[in-house]
Amino acid sequence: MIKTLEWANDCLRILDQTRLPLEELYLDLSSLDQVIEAIRSLRVRGAPAIGVSAAYGMVIAAKSIQSSGTTPFLKELRVLADQLVAARPTAVNLEWAVESIMTRLKEQAHEGPEAIVSDILKQAIAIHEDDRQRCDAMAQHGLAVIPDKAGILTHCNTGFLATAGIGTALGVIFRAHEAGKVSMVYADETRPLLQGARLTAWECAKMGVRHTLICDNMAAALMRQGKVDLVIVGADRIAADGSAANKIGTYGVAVLAHHHNIPFYVAAPLSTFDLNLVSGKAIPIEERNQDEVRKIMNTCQTGPEETPCWNPAFDVTPPHLIEGIITETGILKPPYAHSIAQAFDV
Amino acid sequence: MIKTLEWANDCLRILDQTRLPLEELYLDLSSLDQVIEAIRSLRVRGAPAIGVSAAYGMVIAAKSIQSSGTTPFLKELRVLADQLVAARPTAVNLEWAVESIMTRLKEQAHEGPEAIVSDILKQAIAIHEDDRQRCDAMAQHGLAVIPDKAGILTHCNTGFLATAGIGTALGVIFRAHEAGKVSMVYADETRPLLQGARLTAWECAKMGVRHTLICDNMAAALMRQGKVDLVIVGADRIAADGSAANKIGTYGVAVLAHHHNIPFYVAAPLSTFDLNLVSGKAIPIEERNQDEVRKIMNTCQTGPEETPCWNPAFDVTPPHLIEGIITETGILKPPYAHSIAQAFDV
Repeated sequence: MIKTLEWANDCLRILDQTRLPLEELYLDLSSLDQVIEAIRSLRVRGAPAIGVSAAYGMVIAAKSIQSSGTTPFLKELRVLADQLVAARPTAVNLEWAVESIMTRLKEQAHEGPEAIVSDILKQAIAIHEDDRQRCDAMAQHGLAVIPDKAGILTHCNTGFLATAGIGTALGVIFRAHEAGKVSMVYADETRPLLQGARLTAWECAKMGVRHTLICDNMAAALMRQGKVDLVIVGADRIAADGSAANKIGTYGVAVLAHHHNIPFYVAAPLSTFDLNLVSGKAIPIEERNQDEVRKIMNTCQTGPEETPCWNPAFDVTPPHLIEGIITETGILKPPYAHSIAQAFDV
Repeated sequence: MIKTLEWANDCLRILDQTRLPLEELYLDLSSLDQVIEAIRSLRVRGAPAIGVSAAYGMVIAAKSIQSSGTTPFLKELRVLADQLVAARPTAVNLEWAVESIMTRLKEQAHEGPEAIVSDILKQAIAIHEDDRQRCDAMAQHGLAVIPDKAGILTHCNTGFLATAGIGTALGVIFRAHEAGKVSMVYADETRPLLQGARLTAWECAKMGVRHTLICDNMAAALMRQGKVDLVIVGADRIAADGSAANKIGTYGVAVLAHHHNIPFYVAAPLSTFDLNLVSGKAIPIEERNQDEVRKIMNTCQTGPEETPCWNPAFDVTPPHLIEGIITETGILKPPYAHSIAQAFDV
């Protein structure tokens, strides 16, 4: 599998996802600003991959601090950590990775900055490896919901570009493909940033999975023709009631699946859950630049100059439309308030 | 209002819709091949506008025939008429305009080719004027279904570019705007060919109507936020049971509207109805070149080279999702088999 994200020569090396599929360009990020820019402009994206990138970003942040005393060092690190967390608001994995590093730092005594940096790196590597294993476990659990000869619709990109492992939703699909169960993957192109067209189609081609690219608005007609046996998508943040924020358009796909009696699954690691949020209404939704709508891929102007646009990056799918949530510990079923609490031993 | 389509200097003059909104370029079409190419490549589009263009195309076809006897002349015209009808398969108005001209020619005696050409031109002008009046009548009838301060979602383009008058669905919206009833028009961008972004946003701007452009997959989130009071779309062919073929994505919007208890209306003149078809299943659906999906506006490659795509140009919305069909004679309500038969005095 292609390494889309790794720690190399004291840098975070990423495959620049904004250049795919036309170009496979790697970037070595060596400053916190570069990491934040890469996250904000979606050079690295996908909730779990953002989490792992942020963990390495913390190493880079810590290395940039001049203070030698532990207390001022940690104070400066807190400021940088906040900048990193603010890079994108919706995916909780970003905050989760940063805060779990900060929490552990506070819990342990350190003999100066060097020891702290080395501890953060150890944690980042652990988060990275942990994500890989969680992907494997999700893919294994997810296999159970895939029927033979499945036609599977997915939205956005959730494979090895979006995680540090095989993927979340697309990881399940790839594992099902290896098991000979996939007849066709239908990839929504996923406007405005076209992650389905640019990334999911590219990943499917790399993995040798039969796939068909469609415009987002073709999913309904496809379902009506009986071509879709199930839908699997990822998530950026899941509330305690099972409401799942994911790439804009996901909610519409869930409604369409419901109307056509097609099971709709979410695949996400437990790090995507935010139990502080009682319901989906509290999930912050990032609104991005209107040019993403009216200038496709930064070049192709569609509407008249300055046409007013709406550009929410995510929407929230309510729990009653979700057949199950595939996690690394098993498949959560409704009622989610109960099954999620159980998964977290709350 | 801008003249998007007119008969001038023995040519069909059209505003080239493939160049909008960046360029307002007029083309003078003087051969049947040019007319067919313009229809096929969507330089002129929208079911009613295609019908009117085809009527003038018949004049151009007739003028090109060399035979001097009425019978061989009509025989040659039949061949050319068939070429014209084959330009696009889904919009019935094309066939309707051509066949109504052919039928009347057969019914009347003519004193040679010149008289025939002149008769066709008279008919084409009548079809043109007739379409304009039908649009006005539709807009007037449609006004009744628009609540005050309405948020209206529409898909594709159905205004003065798509007809010879003020439009079908967008005509209703423009009339409602004049009556002070429109708070916001939400225009689906309408992938793959972006008629919503390129044409509807442009028309709304020209008419001074407040509008917001969205990607197709944002409609569901918009509805969930309570921003959409009703949906109005056009149609390319309506079967005897009320099933309506329209631009791909329309069916999905209808399902979403149904889920959110939002009334979904179709606006179309009676020339869009095809009573030969008992149900929507019989409506032929044009599949277009896959490059329209993977190369946006012919230039912007999204997926990997040669990614397999699916590109149906239309889908069919079943009658139970349609609140009413706005026609020039009034608003047809379910059960449509009955109300449509009544409208046609069958």
